[in-house]
Amino acid sequence: MTTTASLTDQPNPHPLEYIFHPRTIAVVGISADVPKMWIRRLYVETPLETGFAGRIALVNPGGGEMMGLPIHRSLKDVPGPIDHVVVSVPARYTPQVLEECREKGVRVVHVFSSGYAETGEPERVELQDRLVQIARAGNMRIIGPNCLGIYYPRGGMGLCPDFPMEAGPIGYLCQSGGNVSFMVRHAVARGLRFSKVVSYGNACDIDECDLLDYMAEDPETKVIAAYIEGAKDGHRLVRAINKAASAKPLVVFKGGYTEGGLRAAASHTGSLAGADAIWDSLLRQAGAIRVYSVEEMVDMLVALLRVDPPRGLNACAVGHGGGASVMATDELERAGLRLIPVPPELRERLKEFVDLANSMLRNPIDVSPVATVDGLEIWKELGSRPLRGVLSERAAGELGGLWGKVNAVLEQWHDLHLVVYHHGFDVSPMPVGEMIVAGLVGPMLLAAMSCQRPKAVVLHSMGNDESWRASADVRALCAEFGLPLFLSMRGAAQAIRKLYDYSQAYPDRLAALRR
Amino acid sequence: MTTTASLTDQPNPHPLEYIFHPRTIAVVGISADVPKMWIRRLYVETPLETGFAGRIALVNPGGGEMMGLPIHRSLKDVPGPIDHVVVSVPARYTPQVLEECREKGVRVVHVFSSGYAETGEPERVELQDRLVQIARAGNMRIIGPNCLGIYYPRGGMGLCPDFPMEAGPIGYLCQSGGNVSFMVRHAVARGLRFSKVVSYGNACDIDECDLLDYMAEDPETKVIAAYIEGAKDGHRLVRAINKAASAKPLVVFKGGYTEGGLRAAASHTGSLAGADAIWDSLLRQAGAIRVYSVEEMVDMLVALLRVDPPRGLNACAVGHGGGASVMATDELERAGLRLIPVPPELRERLKEFVDLANSMLRNPIDVSPVATVDGLEIWKELGSRPLRGVLSERAAGELGGLWGKVNAVLEQWHDLHLVVYHHGFDVSPMPVGEMIVAGLVGPMLLAAMSCQRPKAVVLHSMGNDESWRASADVRALCAEFGLPLFLSMRGAAQAIRKLYDYSQAYPDRLAALRR
Repeated sequence: MTTTASLTDQPNPHPLEYIFHPRTIAVVGISADVPKMWIRRLYVETPLETGFAGRIALVNPGGGEMMGLPIHRSLKDVPGPIDHVVVSVPARYTPQVLEECREKGVRVVHVFSSGYAETGEPERVELQDRLVQIARAGNMRIIGPNCLGIYYPRGGMGLCPDFPMEAGPIGYLCQSGGNVSFMVRHAVARGLRFSKVVSYGNACDIDECDLLDYMAEDPETKVIAAYIEGAKDGHRLVRAINKAASAKPLVVFKGGYTEGGLRAAASHTGSLAGADAIWDSLLRQAGAIRVYSVEEMVDMLVALLRVDPPRGLNACAVGHGGGASVMATDELERAGLRLIPVPPELRERLKEFVDLANSMLRNPIDVSPVATVDGLEIWKELGSRPLRGVLSERAAGELGGLWGKVNAVLEQWHDLHLVVYHHGFDVSPMPVGEMIVAGLVGPMLLAAMSCQRPKAVVLHSMGNDESWRASADVRALCAEFGLPLFLSMRGAAQAIRKLYDYSQAYPDRLAALRR
Repeated sequence: MTTTASLTDQPNPHPLEYIFHPRTIAVVGISADVPKMWIRRLYVETPLETGFAGRIALVNPGGGEMMGLPIHRSLKDVPGPIDHVVVSVPARYTPQVLEECREKGVRVVHVFSSGYAETGEPERVELQDRLVQIARAGNMRIIGPNCLGIYYPRGGMGLCPDFPMEAGPIGYLCQSGGNVSFMVRHAVARGLRFSKVVSYGNACDIDECDLLDYMAEDPETKVIAAYIEGAKDGHRLVRAINKAASAKPLVVFKGGYTEGGLRAAASHTGSLAGADAIWDSLLRQAGAIRVYSVEEMVDMLVALLRVDPPRGLNACAVGHGGGASVMATDELERAGLRLIPVPPELRERLKEFVDLANSMLRNPIDVSPVATVDGLEIWKELGSRPLRGVLSERAAGELGGLWGKVNAVLEQWHDLHLVVYHHGFDVSPMPVGEMIVAGLVGPMLLAAMSCQRPKAVVLHSMGNDESWRASADVRALCAEFGLPLFLSMRGAAQAIRKLYDYSQAYPDRLAALRR
């Protein structure tokens, strides 16, 4: 233990800390075959490209060379000690590989291979049990089998080649490999970053309880996200969930919450999923935040990390379009927020500079005329300059313009708790091009940035290739500026409502997150 | 009435038929000013580009010329009769324009301008009433005010420049202008087309009842979609909804279904929205299908027009990825579908050619190993050829390959009613590029095409620019091939469940739609 403990800065590292600090990683089962290209890409090329400071060793009985590295015929041929082994050989050969790991003094084995307990076939359940026995005997830990393993950007352990190597506050434990790339990609597109991600598959050794316990103590992790399909030990689970949820905001997506879903979870990761009602009461009692999809999870993380918790449920929707404003109102109120009417004296102030035609000034506020005026300003300034540059420059200064006046009115609205700025791209009858984006969305983002109240930005209705492409710059800007970006009003409303409830029930947990 | 009746092929045209067959359209308030570019683009350039067979006349007191057309100083200066006038001048001048329309013998006035009853200001409510009085006296009909007007591709009446001029079966009446472009763009991206679309705004004359009545009788319309914020006459509404719903599938999105939403609807289109419970029971009794967002509306239309109604609720999810399969199951079962286990003898047949490692063979079926094998085939065939070409060619032949064997097993599963093929782009740990698309999604689409059962295709998890771009070709192919494409499992599940319920309650209505 001395060797790896020295790799962390912590005086009393968590017993699992060392799994994130290998000095040498060996990839067993590396091959130039096309079906194996994943292994090469994820576990060799990516760490080499992304600055993994340790050594990477390749192993295949066939020998040879790959990417300038020798391919050793067996683990014992690799010179020096090995901390971490990625195993990608057919399941039936894995006990032998684990025996070799034990002989070599390996400490963590990540079994990428699948075809174990999740198949439900008795001999394959037994095969998985043998792995555990070998690991126990050799004082090794297993991640998996049937999983993607570790993504730890701060430690140079990249995974998918497009994952950023910039670190962030989210610790994510995920029983599925696919839900790692799904979640990370969607969260990154919204400007979020991760401390540590572990895909742990069948959980034959390291399981959700170990990882929850670790994430609860990990100083690099400020909020915990978990995709869990099942657990083997109810009592341990209760303890782990309670410990994690009281330490930090904990967002849980329980996969397999329907009857068929339970069977599916068993078939995916061999999980004993347990009745949903039990999970629900367990999560509720611990004060964990429950979500029902990856999209909801990402929305919840955006809310936790980017939205200041509103002190009440009074919201104002400000955006473009009449139908869009009606729909925004329905979605917000459906989630329990209240769109209280603009007070008469503030409405009079809005009427001083917003044309009543083509606007709505009662809350929702449809500021289309304002947008047209401020938008033309930006449009003139653009010339051949990129929108991102112009908006970044302007963001540094005073807001000004008509949007400045709108924000000033919102500031004076004393019983308002939340402002939701929204724009639907396909809602504009004009082709969704640069003019719409620069003219309508640009000034709105500047207004959102300068708004001092709890706020959210919803950019939605990008249903075809043109609107998706046209909105790319402003979506990226939201991420860059740290704005709380949502891609649907329903998602924003539900997540912010949960944030409000959470902040009322557990104000201390949020305070810790936000400092 | 004789003049326009001759423009339709129907012996007894509906009293509103003529509004879709103008011979001359005059645009009053045309201008080169930037804020007015919408008017030029939507009502002059688009019809000129998209083959409107009649004349287009421009009117502005300033005179001049635009796009090679003279700008007349007033309506009476336009030579010959005018059937249809688009009015885009400030609200206070519109009564005068309507007087001129009356003198000129105009038959339909589409008032684009806003700033009437929707503002809630008494003098503006009165202004709207004056328009109605003038129209009544002159035997004219008004569309609007505060709306986009008509999109009628078969008649060469384009609207937004990116709307297709190919016609289809959907008649859409929409109280919001923005929800026209929102809905049409999203539906078109899924391969759907429209017979007639009318955005009717404040409904001061032609209202939801007139349009429902028209769509019910319109032989070009096979299914009716409606976005309605409110109605003035409850008794007429009940009759119109009942008539439309018994004639054809009727999908209604009632905007303003929350308390704040009711206020918002009043502020948007001056609608008296009415308690939601009343709407709900009215729609339920008429057998209309109620939805709660534009996205749900598009999903429902895809289900109605592209999915054969399943004869029961037993579904099988076939796709890629373990977590994705678990989530698919939960979403389908949550909507009331049942993922029954694969019968043992069929599971044995699957095991003959699907490797148990990295697959799930109990329903959900995770066919990742199958995909790899069939995908490599296509990948080899690609070379420098475009994926769309290769898939189109292959679609014409026998399915074959391992996917062919999967489909054969599904065919023999007698109590199965629905197959849902699914792929989540960001679910793949590999970068979402051409290889994933060609290798995993291409063969799956071919399988879906050759499947003889009720089926759906769900392509989801496109959360960033790479996956959206990479999926563009296969999404377009689904539209081209007429496959029922959904962009979320939740959306697919809910729409198909509603389709099932509808087909059980009203089999005759669906039979009429599908012949």
